[in-house]
Amino acid sequence: MSTLEMIHAAAKRGEGKIQRTPLLHSDFLDEIAGRRLLVKAECLQTTGSFKFRGGWSAVSALEEATRARGVIAYSSGNHAQGVAMAAKILGAPAVIIMPKDAPELKLANTRAMGAEVVLYDRYSEDRDQVGNEIAEARGLHLIKPYDNEYVIAGQGTCGLEIAEQAAEAGVASGEVLVCCGGGGLTSGVALACSENAPGLKVRPVEPENYDDVARSLASGRRESIDGRPPSICDAIVTPSPGEITFPILSAHCGAGIVVNETEVLNAMRLAFNRLKIVVEPGGAVALAAALFHSDKIESDAVIAVATGGNVDSEMFAKALATEGQQP
Amino acid sequence: MSTLEMIHAAAKRGEGKIQRTPLLHSDFLDEIAGRRLLVKAECLQTTGSFKFRGGWSAVSALEEATRARGVIAYSSGNHAQGVAMAAKILGAPAVIIMPKDAPELKLANTRAMGAEVVLYDRYSEDRDQVGNEIAEARGLHLIKPYDNEYVIAGQGTCGLEIAEQAAEAGVASGEVLVCCGGGGLTSGVALACSENAPGLKVRPVEPENYDDVARSLASGRRESIDGRPPSICDAIVTPSPGEITFPILSAHCGAGIVVNETEVLNAMRLAFNRLKIVVEPGGAVALAAALFHSDKIESDAVIAVATGGNVDSEMFAKALATEGQQP
Repeated sequence: MSTLEMIHAAAKRGEGKIQRTPLLHSDFLDEIAGRRLLVKAECLQTTGSFKFRGGWSAVSALEEATRARGVIAYSSGNHAQGVAMAAKILGAPAVIIMPKDAPELKLANTRAMGAEVVLYDRYSEDRDQVGNEIAEARGLHLIKPYDNEYVIAGQGTCGLEIAEQAAEAGVASGEVLVCCGGGGLTSGVALACSENAPGLKVRPVEPENYDDVARSLASGRRESIDGRPPSICDAIVTPSPGEITFPILSAHCGAGIVVNETEVLNAMRLAFNRLKIVVEPGGAVALAAALFHSDKIESDAVIAVATGGNVDSEMFAKALATEGQQP
Repeated sequence: MSTLEMIHAAAKRGEGKIQRTPLLHSDFLDEIAGRRLLVKAECLQTTGSFKFRGGWSAVSALEEATRARGVIAYSSGNHAQGVAMAAKILGAPAVIIMPKDAPELKLANTRAMGAEVVLYDRYSEDRDQVGNEIAEARGLHLIKPYDNEYVIAGQGTCGLEIAEQAAEAGVASGEVLVCCGGGGLTSGVALACSENAPGLKVRPVEPENYDDVARSLASGRRESIDGRPPSICDAIVTPSPGEITFPILSAHCGAGIVVNETEVLNAMRLAFNRLKIVVEPGGAVALAAALFHSDKIESDAVIAVATGGNVDSEMFAKALATEGQQP
């Protein structure tokens, strides 16, 4: 089965479980963006981010016996919650490896979903190694956050919805900006759009200091981030594009866009004011690009995916207090 | 045409304009509520509140010549924006009478929608009188916020969606809690549900000090609030149920529920944490009732309408800082 066929199969398995999130709009944001701007509100997805799509896709695809032994995932928090919630609904035990400094809310939520949380230090430990060791010792099925075809297929269901909703909104051509970490969502959406909405060009957006995908697309090979620079965009601070995702990104995506943290905080504030949704820093980079990097966008219409809303009150209050272009 | 037929006609006129807002859910909120809780996110409606439904219904129903002369409305802010936006889209001039102390955001938005804003003092002036005088002097068509059959019909379209979405979610019986000021939305939703989802019982929810509808339903006649006590719930601080709305409320609604301001702020905080939506104080009273007044609810399932999200950052930050039962 091709990845494209897997996306349709994931959508089928997700019926009644994966939410069809709305495509929101505000005249005020159009004015700032200088074009028609539609926002796909994935923060309204089950568990507060698109990651439930991939988690559900992967856990629901497992054979009964494998699922009964349990699953393991590593994640800064959103993939953790996506897998934990899918496992909970499907009755599979789940172990989640999370960084010690993940937002409190993400840690608490993952535990509340019945998962066993194992903490690691992301500045000194390698999460792949931590995850692999536990998986092997306990016979758990590892669900990687983006380098997993079922996960990519699950995230691709968001692309199927975008293709459908763009058509409903009368948008036949434009750019789709996607917040990008390892590229699971971006590659899934790009594949789905390439088939269902060929007039929509997907472009990854990253925060400053984590521009590995933009650089990789420019050079044609997987580039990496040196060290672990601090970032408020905890959901998407991955060191390089995935092995499976990068060839898909290369084949289907336009150039990457990079935004700074002030732009991210302002995008969060404007999403609060104009769309009435809660967006976390890593989930706001695509909207920030649409609003503050108009010069890098060519189409008359742009769709920005607001990928998640799992943010602590302190960080959100900081975004609300950020000085911006207008209220 | 009966009001019920008018609701269907309003839905027809609203196709492609009125958003079908999602019905959201969170296991965490179910746990607090002690039952299945679904939240109708009207804060995601065009202009950030359900009021666009009524505004669109009323302005789009006008004859061409009347519409060209212009419309006038008085409102603390949400009806103002609903009418202003409908008028803008339909090319009608609009004058909006707003209280001097309405939230900055609501004043700024209404002006940005092209309406002429006239301010009045709600502690010393009578807004009906101010509105009637200007309407007469300038030949404008007055659109009252709730005592207008077209407005009630427009708000009723929210009820048609609730009936449909409850059925999709497998909820055949339960209580529908609606934030209630003059009763426009509550009566519209009650009428729509009485026809399309007879197992759903609508109940108005009000903030402390503004319990006129609850008392009116109990006594069987229109009771009033003495004076103008302060309240953070600016959207729904009306002195008594409407003349047109009260008979509908009496015929179709269950007993009212009254919540306090701490409960309102906690409901806003939980909507932020668990649903990723921005809800204003007056838009959060129904959710507050569902979460903190379980003892007054009988059904296994409850639907709370989150009616609006037009809140200043300062008030929202206050809600985020409120101590609550759990994160």
